[in-house]
Parts: sequence; structure tokens; C-alpha cells
Amino acid sequence: MKVYFVSDGTAITAEVFGSAMLSFFEVDIITKSVPFLSTKDQANGLKQQIDLEVEQGASVLVFYTISDQSISDIVQSCQCHCYNVFGDMLSPIEQALGVKAQPSAQKAHGMKAGVYDGRIDAINYALANDDGASIKNFDQADIILLGVSRSGKTPTSLYLAMQYGIRAANYPITEDDFSSAGLPKVLKLHKKKLFGLTIDPQRLHEIRTGRMAQSKYASFRQCRYEIEEVESLYRQERIPSLNSTTLSVEEISTKVMAEMNLERHRQ
Amino acid sequence: MKVYFVSDGTAITAEVFGSAMLSFFEVDIITKSVPFLSTKDQANGLKQQIDLEVEQGASVLVFYTISDQSISDIVQSCQCHCYNVFGDMLSPIEQALGVKAQPSAQKAHGMKAGVYDGRIDAINYALANDDGASIKNFDQADIILLGVSRSGKTPTSLYLAMQYGIRAANYPITEDDFSSAGLPKVLKLHKKKLFGLTIDPQRLHEIRTGRMAQSKYASFRQCRYEIEEVESLYRQERIPSLNSTTLSVEEISTKVMAEMNLERHRQ
Repeated sequence: MKVYFVSDGTAITAEVFGSAMLSFFEVDIITKSVPFLSTKDQANGLKQQIDLEVEQGASVLVFYTISDQSISDIVQSCQCHCYNVFGDMLSPIEQALGVKAQPSAQKAHGMKAGVYDGRIDAINYALANDDGASIKNFDQADIILLGVSRSGKTPTSLYLAMQYGIRAANYPITEDDFSSAGLPKVLKLHKKKLFGLTIDPQRLHEIRTGRMAQSKYASFRQCRYEIEEVESLYRQERIPSLNSTTLSVEEISTKVMAEMNLERHRQ
Repeated sequence: MKVYFVSDGTAITAEVFGSAMLSFFEVDIITKSVPFLSTKDQANGLKQQIDLEVEQGASVLVFYTISDQSISDIVQSCQCHCYNVFGDMLSPIEQALGVKAQPSAQKAHGMKAGVYDGRIDAINYALANDDGASIKNFDQADIILLGVSRSGKTPTSLYLAMQYGIRAANYPITEDDFSSAGLPKVLKLHKKKLFGLTIDPQRLHEIRTGRMAQSKYASFRQCRYEIEEVESLYRQERIPSLNSTTLSVEEISTKVMAEMNLERHRQ
């Protein structure tokens, strides 16, 4: 099964919607995104290509989001199953809102033209405050992620910044922190912002081995020791925490936000 | 208008779809995401809250993706306009595929349980190769972004890694590079991977001023000089390029991928 995600914009909506839709089905799929399709010539070119593939026996699906009616008509005329992602939902929503849809008003994903993206500031913040790099900025943090090395702090911080403009610092918990009683001083001041990540020792061992095989750092024994200590620290200090072992970055991030009552602002 | 994005998972699909849908309308909107709704009790709690808001005169919309029928029935019974995001599209797609939808087969966004996410490697790669930090890894790059300081290289590299698992290095073009003729040596070896970002001098001046006001670095004169030089370098060396001034990170990233024929693998 070949699936096209076609759009006059980034095609992200068609991708996210189409992929979610297809995840209900146990079929092998090859996907192809066709963004920024903005002329009839381009649409006709795509139609020719798809129709040829269908003639040659391929099974093809198309998910599309296109504002211009004459262009979307061409895509819809492909000799395969074509789904207008916004399809039949626009008119009931028009009724609910009591406002006419205006294709031209459709804003792109992300920032509006000319407005500097608050997410960029959040990304810069995450980078500057990665791995405990600059603890003096913790008062500006929306959240401070804790965890041992390779438990998922950095990707989570970056995802929170990128998708939701959240300022996430992160602080690596190391052996030094276990020897002293309680939380490192720098964290005590910001206790309400703390969230702990943890991970199964076996998984941590595998990840660290991928980076530094045969080291003490990657050994199962060391991983187990660090995880036991860090989990006991979370319990002792009543820090909310999450085991990231089987979760995607998206799942970790959205669970952390829910737990910490951080509002999502998709920008 | 208050809009809820409700899901038994991350709610990302409901957010992306609902936000794209609502962008057709010129209405003021407050959004609230309700992820990981997995019990009837939670659904009834949400229904009570929404029904109360509606009674008190609020105008409410709900977009939801929920697999369990008895839970989705509760959400659907809220006293407001409720839209099942997958709604009526599942059964035509079942017919097209000749396969029954299996709600339980629905995979979460991102990686499958237990499989280490290739995107994490790409994020680590982007971080290690940010700002020309480690030019010796350029042979592993899928793409190398060029541009003067603050023209959008880092957020774009991270987005490409996070969403598509693409290994994007980036290399800052500085005054030193202008004085010598042609491309820096380290880049010549990887010419096919190069992509240039540029930006309007006035916008660059504003962004840099936000970081280092009153500096030569941020001055309009300096920004204009650097942009003229870098654009002339792109032309001279026939490096494909893009002006990022009015574009979101999503738009920059998807345009770069289209231009460089990088396949998108939403994982």
C-alpha cells in the first residue's frame, strides 16, 4: 500500500492525521509526502504519476489538505482512494461557530509571519540549560527535569520547547548527588519545578553500551545502582516521576505536562 | 470559544487536526488538552465540567480521539459540539484497504514500545554537530545547514531530527569565511549536502539585538554586510538556499527537505 500526504502547505496535518488513521490497520505502508503543491500543473503532474502507479497495479491512498478548489478537484480525481482530511467536517463546524470558513485565513503551523517565535527562545533556553549547564537560570524554568545520564532528559526538554514553547531545564543526577543526603542545594530552591525521569536498568545498560561499550558507566551493575539511588531520591523528596522505558518522546512530554499542570500552547 | 482536545493517548492528533481545522475561522479560541483519558470516571468528570461551562453560557467545542466505545460515548454526550476526529473516515478506509480497523492496534506517536528511537540518535547528532562543533562527523550527516549566526540553523536541525530522524549538522558562516575565496575547506568535501539559510537583514538585526543589544554583532550595518556576503557565497557556489524570515520552523524544515529530496519518515 502506497500512501501520499498531499498539501498546499507543509503537509504536516495530512501526515499526522493520515498516519494516526492508518495506525488502526495492520498493513504494510510506504508513505510519500508532497508538500507545497500550489499550482494546477503540479497537481496534474501528481495525478499522472499516481494514475500510472495505479494502472501498474499499485494500491494507492491519498490524504490531502488543499484550500484551492480547482487544485483539490484535480487531486480528488486521481484513480485511487482520496481523502480530503478536513472533508465533511468544515460545514458542521461553520454551523457550530456561526462563522464561515475562510481558506485564506488558514494559518500555517507554527508562528505567524513576522512574529518571532517564542518557541525559538524556549529551544535556546533548553540548549543553554541542558545537562545542568547553567543552574543560575533555573528561576526562569517552567520545569526542571532530573535523571541519571541517558534517561531521556534532553530530548524531552527539546520537545517541550519545540512543540509547546515550554522552558525546560534539565539537571543530571550523578553519583556525587547520592553521597550527600537529600537534594543538591541548587535544586532545593526550585522544588516545585522538579520532575524526575527514570528508566529500567536493563534498558539504560543497552543505551549506554551503544555509546560507551565495556565502560563502568555502561555496566548493568552501575546502571542498576544509579537507578535504585535516583528512584529512592525521588521517593524521599516526593518528586513526581515517570519511567520512560517504553514511551516515545511525545508520550513522555505530554505525560510530564499533564502531571505538572503545564498548559499546552501549540503555537 | 473554548476548545477541548481529548484523547486516550497523547492528544497530539486531536490537537494538530483540531488546530488546523480552527485556523480556517477568525474566532478567538482558548484551548485545553485532556490527554490520557482512559476511564469512564474520567470521561464523566470531563462531561460534568464541560456541561457546567455550557450551562454557564460558554461556547464549547470538543475534538476527540478515543478507541473505547463506551468512553467515547460519554464524551460524545457532552452538551456541546463534539467531533470524533477519525469519525466517518474509518469505514471508507476499511473498505479501501479491505482490512478491518483494530483500535487495539493503534500505535502511539513516536517509537514502538521497547524499540530505541532512531530520532534520539538524530537529536544527539544534531546537538553534537551544532554550530560547527564537530566537523569530523560531516560524513554521517544527511544534510549540513549553513547560515550566519541566528538565521535559524539550530531549531531547524533539531526539528528535522525530532520529527523525521534526519541527521542535520550545521555550520556557522562567519566573517572569516568571507575573507577567503569560496567555501571553507571542510565544506567542499560535502558539497551535495549543503543547504543555505538566509534572512532579511532587518529581521536579523532585531533578533540579534534581543540577544546582544548595542553590539557590533547586532548592528543593522553588520547584519546587512553578513547577509550580502552569505547570499553571494550561496550564489557563487550554487548552494540551494531559503529565506527564513517569515517562515515557521515547520515550514523551513519541510521546504528544506523537499528541496534536498530528503525522505520524510514520521516514526
